[in-house]
Amino acid sequence: MRQASGAAPDLGRLSFNQMTCDPANLSEAIAATGRAGLNWIGVWRHKIKDAPVEQYGKQIKDAGLRVSGLCRGGMFPAAAAEERQRKIDDNLRAIDEAAALGTDTLVMVCGGVPEGSRDLDGARQMVIDGLGAIVPHAKSCGVRIGIEPLHPMYAADRSVVSTLGLANDMADQVGSDQVGVVIDVYHVWWDPDVHREIERSRGRIFGFHVCDWLVPTPHMLMGRGMMGDGVIEIARLRQEVDAQGYNGPIECEIFNQAVWETPIDKTMKRMKQTFVDCC
Amino acid sequence: MRQASGAAPDLGRLSFNQMTCDPANLSEAIAATGRAGLNWIGVWRHKIKDAPVEQYGKQIKDAGLRVSGLCRGGMFPAAAAEERQRKIDDNLRAIDEAAALGTDTLVMVCGGVPEGSRDLDGARQMVIDGLGAIVPHAKSCGVRIGIEPLHPMYAADRSVVSTLGLANDMADQVGSDQVGVVIDVYHVWWDPDVHREIERSRGRIFGFHVCDWLVPTPHMLMGRGMMGDGVIEIARLRQEVDAQGYNGPIECEIFNQAVWETPIDKTMKRMKQTFVDCC
Repeated sequence: MRQASGAAPDLGRLSFNQMTCDPANLSEAIAATGRAGLNWIGVWRHKIKDAPVEQYGKQIKDAGLRVSGLCRGGMFPAAAAEERQRKIDDNLRAIDEAAALGTDTLVMVCGGVPEGSRDLDGARQMVIDGLGAIVPHAKSCGVRIGIEPLHPMYAADRSVVSTLGLANDMADQVGSDQVGVVIDVYHVWWDPDVHREIERSRGRIFGFHVCDWLVPTPHMLMGRGMMGDGVIEIARLRQEVDAQGYNGPIECEIFNQAVWETPIDKTMKRMKQTFVDCC
Repeated sequence: MRQASGAAPDLGRLSFNQMTCDPANLSEAIAATGRAGLNWIGVWRHKIKDAPVEQYGKQIKDAGLRVSGLCRGGMFPAAAAEERQRKIDDNLRAIDEAAALGTDTLVMVCGGVPEGSRDLDGARQMVIDGLGAIVPHAKSCGVRIGIEPLHPMYAADRSVVSTLGLANDMADQVGSDQVGVVIDVYHVWWDPDVHREIERSRGRIFGFHVCDWLVPTPHMLMGRGMMGDGVIEIARLRQEVDAQGYNGPIECEIFNQAVWETPIDKTMKRMKQTFVDCC
């Protein structure tokens, strides 16, 4: 039974982010996504290390799938300039990998406050500088940079970009069509400004991710729930994102031990059903 | 060695929030706070249930202490109107308890999304309505209502007031001098708008709480650290709050099992030192 008012999104937009089933390797995730009849898969960089990335690109294409986005670039802040350059270099490689996988979107988890530092403003400036440094290569490769604001509980160690408003500010400051935002309901649902900031994201929404916020939350990292199992007004946010002209893939990305231990085909089935019912 | 630029705050402003040592009952906390030479103590309602509140009020006064604030009123949202009224009634009792303890400040943890609901906006309206309902009694008792924005990771189950901006909006909407904000660095440090919103809080800052954000955070509830052990720019925030004319008590409030298991006099000593060094 559909929870929300309005039509369900087209199932053809649903993308299986492979971290929804961490135990599967990428080949297994590709096969399961194909069996489920989906069009899209979301890929993580640490899952493509065991073979040439072009091989995975071909495997995905041969399965009739497209990559909705590559996770993740970013992690720009660091105390030392050399370390910041190493991180920029790694992002340039991530852009190459995205291109080799045939996706036009690299998802950015921008990085936290450098170890031993308390300079949050400085870390945010390092993110802007890092984004600016990779824009030319991204442009030449046809890869878009999607800043994903992360929940404020990750501000210290994962991303100092804690709100969609800040992601929009940063995209403005970098000032390139190559840079936009990726909106994950898990990270932004609580924000009193989220509806206004989705409007402000018009024209630069490069991805949309769904899952749910469980009550109580079992774990800060591994506590995400399947759509409908929590408190997020997912359908409202999805409709607002679509109303800004976004009609691309919608990734389901769930970090949760119980979901990980579920057989992948069963997860696919439940994901498709809750996508229709709750998104 | 002092970390931050600028003078340390007056040690006479330091308040021991009794939840920094949960194993101690209120009498023990009062005695230890007196031994430490402090002027202020922060009290929790569930700690005053075992004796008449007036008795605790006298005990605190006899120890030469004052109560910086009573935690906590709030928890307004509920699906049923009768349940919401019960919560308002409980807040009226909390106001009486604050007055009996001799404090002019009741700290509000405003409540989460009602069980089974996804209506975040509705829950926020219930908070505004609840605050409005208790203002007359608060005024007649000389007790101020301090809305404490809570970290967004508590939005679902503890407080839908996730930013200082929203707390300021709500105070504006209630429109009474009796209603202001309580700022805890743990809840607001990550917010790109916090510095601007502290300015906007001028004249209605009813409390200021300190502790630190540890990396990694060991637990969503019990993961707070002693000042200086984490990433928060505490001194900067304290100076900004003071610059808005706040010169009241500064509560140290730490939920952390390791701190709880430390002998209370040792915690007092460390708290005083880190207050001078880091606040």
